[in-house]
Amino acid sequence: MDKIVSIQLNKNSDIPMYIQLFNHIKDLILEGILEEGYRLPSIRKLAQQLGINNVTVVNAYKTLEQQGYAFSKQGSGIYIAPQKTVVKPTEVEESVSDEFFEEEDIQLMSRGQITLSENSINFASATPTAELFPVEDFKQVLNEVLDQDRGHAFGYHESNGYRELRYSISQFIHKNYAIQAHANDIQIISGAQQGIDIIAKALINPGDYVFVENPTYTGAIAVFKSRGAKIIGIPIVQNGIDIDVLEKYIKIYHPKLIYTMPNYQNPTTFCYSQEKKEYLLTLAYQHNFFIIEDDFLSDLNFEKNSTLYTLKAIDRYEKVLYIKSFSKVLMPGLRIGFLITPAEIFKDILQAKHTTDISSSGLIQRAFDLYLKKGVWGRHLEYMKGIYQERYKAMIQEVDILKEIGVSYDKPGGGLNLWLTLPEEVSATQLYYECGKKDVLLIPGKIFYVKNTNDSDRNIRISFAAVYPKQIEKGVKVIYNCIAKLQNNTEKHIVYYSPLI
Amino acid sequence: MDKIVSIQLNKNSDIPMYIQLFNHIKDLILEGILEEGYRLPSIRKLAQQLGINNVTVVNAYKTLEQQGYAFSKQGSGIYIAPQKTVVKPTEVEESVSDEFFEEEDIQLMSRGQITLSENSINFASATPTAELFPVEDFKQVLNEVLDQDRGHAFGYHESNGYRELRYSISQFIHKNYAIQAHANDIQIISGAQQGIDIIAKALINPGDYVFVENPTYTGAIAVFKSRGAKIIGIPIVQNGIDIDVLEKYIKIYHPKLIYTMPNYQNPTTFCYSQEKKEYLLTLAYQHNFFIIEDDFLSDLNFEKNSTLYTLKAIDRYEKVLYIKSFSKVLMPGLRIGFLITPAEIFKDILQAKHTTDISSSGLIQRAFDLYLKKGVWGRHLEYMKGIYQERYKAMIQEVDILKEIGVSYDKPGGGLNLWLTLPEEVSATQLYYECGKKDVLLIPGKIFYVKNTNDSDRNIRISFAAVYPKQIEKGVKVIYNCIAKLQNNTEKHIVYYSPLI
Repeated sequence: MDKIVSIQLNKNSDIPMYIQLFNHIKDLILEGILEEGYRLPSIRKLAQQLGINNVTVVNAYKTLEQQGYAFSKQGSGIYIAPQKTVVKPTEVEESVSDEFFEEEDIQLMSRGQITLSENSINFASATPTAELFPVEDFKQVLNEVLDQDRGHAFGYHESNGYRELRYSISQFIHKNYAIQAHANDIQIISGAQQGIDIIAKALINPGDYVFVENPTYTGAIAVFKSRGAKIIGIPIVQNGIDIDVLEKYIKIYHPKLIYTMPNYQNPTTFCYSQEKKEYLLTLAYQHNFFIIEDDFLSDLNFEKNSTLYTLKAIDRYEKVLYIKSFSKVLMPGLRIGFLITPAEIFKDILQAKHTTDISSSGLIQRAFDLYLKKGVWGRHLEYMKGIYQERYKAMIQEVDILKEIGVSYDKPGGGLNLWLTLPEEVSATQLYYECGKKDVLLIPGKIFYVKNTNDSDRNIRISFAAVYPKQIEKGVKVIYNCIAKLQNNTEKHIVYYSPLI
Repeated sequence: MDKIVSIQLNKNSDIPMYIQLFNHIKDLILEGILEEGYRLPSIRKLAQQLGINNVTVVNAYKTLEQQGYAFSKQGSGIYIAPQKTVVKPTEVEESVSDEFFEEEDIQLMSRGQITLSENSINFASATPTAELFPVEDFKQVLNEVLDQDRGHAFGYHESNGYRELRYSISQFIHKNYAIQAHANDIQIISGAQQGIDIIAKALINPGDYVFVENPTYTGAIAVFKSRGAKIIGIPIVQNGIDIDVLEKYIKIYHPKLIYTMPNYQNPTTFCYSQEKKEYLLTLAYQHNFFIIEDDFLSDLNFEKNSTLYTLKAIDRYEKVLYIKSFSKVLMPGLRIGFLITPAEIFKDILQAKHTTDISSSGLIQRAFDLYLKKGVWGRHLEYMKGIYQERYKAMIQEVDILKEIGVSYDKPGGGLNLWLTLPEEVSATQLYYECGKKDVLLIPGKIFYVKNTNDSDRNIRISFAAVYPKQIEKGVKVIYNCIAKLQNNTEKHIVYYSPLI
């Protein structure tokens, strides 16, 4: 208690008061001074003793709880939690190499699981905020399913998925994505991550080579590693994967599989040209490898004059495993998506799904089926596109000012992210910390690269899924100021150490 | 069409008419005579032309659909499906060795996904029937969650699980199972199968030895194989695993892990004695391996005078990974369970879960949390125990007559299965087929054994989870008659071929 009461907070600091308090208490926990089970002082008491607002203490305690350092017992108070509670989800730290990030925070922020305060501007999350979800529509279909199907909604379901839903999806993808697939080619999955996992189980043996775009989604790398695969990163450029490097490496490594996001790639938001899509399919046929197409954003095309085809729609060689996730355009928490697999490996995929979790939730499958059948999807998609497009426009408009200070980027015309290249002298890692102090969250690009393949530290990913237009102007200004500050620091730094001056 | 109209059905056969019709059409499909997309004759037309009841055709078509041979288009008719639709979920066929079963059917029946007709008696399924599920209670908690939490119910959730639920479970297991575990030791999983899968991901490398009870749940074997483990089966006897064999093999193979079901083991329904439980824990400590305790039935103790402890409740060495499934006592389709892990591997388990599907459904987690908090669990468990106990008593009473013809078994005092040993001359596989003809479903014991470890074919598993008391008497009589028939056949067989007579 004395240790906490003696904490010194700096009212003039750049760091918000509650973050200062949170950091102090967190340090006391990590140093072992505050132990598991220790009851924190009451909010009013601590606020009084430190001469600060109640709200500051509330926010600090809330942040401690959100990050797993403390937990509350109803009617009793807030206690220090055991230290293993810190959530550290993926193998990302391996791809961060020597640099230190609080990777778990970045991961959680990017999924919208952590928002440091009501005032923070979260460019790190590419996940829509909860108020955008069609809760009423879903509540209605859930209740209809429960009234109609009763206990059958809670029985075991087929491992390949609820038959009615597979038929609905077959029609849905034909209409919306020009993809021809029979209900029997469709495997229901509990989200895209599971799709990647069961494909890896079905196809990857230890020592197999798997190619990924570089940079890419680290959650996929973690799966392939877990199967003992060797990962090769192929650079991605504005119009898609670097075909020259790809062809060279295909001949050397004979990959089993390549993991791609051809439309609005994560994190770069680059799209493959139609020619590259066609050529990748030809290569897959010639060299006998499969392509995972992870499609989570191709619905979000804001430029009406271009049509974005999926690889699957033109997959005449049956080489594409198409994963569709609804996390970004519908709701991440549904944990429902689907996989279209080539006929030759359908049974292997089905076995892997069965081994993984027997089947996805029947209730959610039935509700989603009814949701598709009711035809409200189109309406919802238009609504989400409207929201995102407004944010995209605000973002593009504001980010323009960053060009003044040497930032470059390509307008993606869709998706949920911008991929910025910083001026040479500015480190993205430092920028991440500087902006963090001002409550502006972004993701340094390094964490998306295959381990040891990127020495530079010049990219950041900023997302507009979870920010309101009015926050964007403010947030980009903070980024501007932080870049400017780091440039000045660097210049001073150079001046100071240069023996020539 | 001509091929179908010319089908000959035998009204005096033991095989129900609709099954005969189903088999004929299935054969025409498998022989390629009826091709994908072929529209089957209308029900009335076919019934008329074959001189049979409409209902017979309806049931045959329904069975074709259920087994993936056909599909219906609304308002248009019933069509032949592409042939890869046959669901073949696990690697079970490998443990069936040379014998031929329709394994996929057995697997589906055992999960209640196939019921061949309204009249069939399903001793194959250990899963409660849909009318027993607490649908109204669950509908209520789902709606309360949606009204309270709105979009937050559909956001991403923590990979280790919704915090409130983990606290509820911590209290729940303390009260119900005398297990002490902090909320932070608990990992939410999407069902027990996923629990086994993420443990395997976290702990098993190719070439590691994994021990299993023999016979055991084949879904677990499939997971360990998929990780490249070498599987060793340890015999299980009435009071638990064979300790002598276990100790001998531990010294030879140094297992990483042993997979167990100490209470009401599947398929045998054997329970470990308290001494064996204690000794297994000591061995795990001495020889440094982990124990998976898969607990899905220990709630169903019908003998009030015995208390069944879990291994986890007495796990003083922190060697037990405890998996709890609610599929058998609540609802299989929830796809929610939990895992308690030793502190030293908590982070590995969490990473594996994240890699597998990021998190379990937030909506279902929140609803299940509220369900536990409302305290209706106890009431529901008593209800289910009452139902199952009645079926258990009916089963025990009826099965007694099988002793007359040489069947032996031990009364388990709980669980959902009986494990019968047939007289020497009767093959369980043949019995399975004979009973199947009479619409009585059971599971031949062979499929539960680790590959090539069981030459005998003398056990069957009969479950009473999905049969009504009035069906039990009838079903057991069918088994009795079929055994008697096979005995007579065998005797004749012996007489016929013996050169001495």
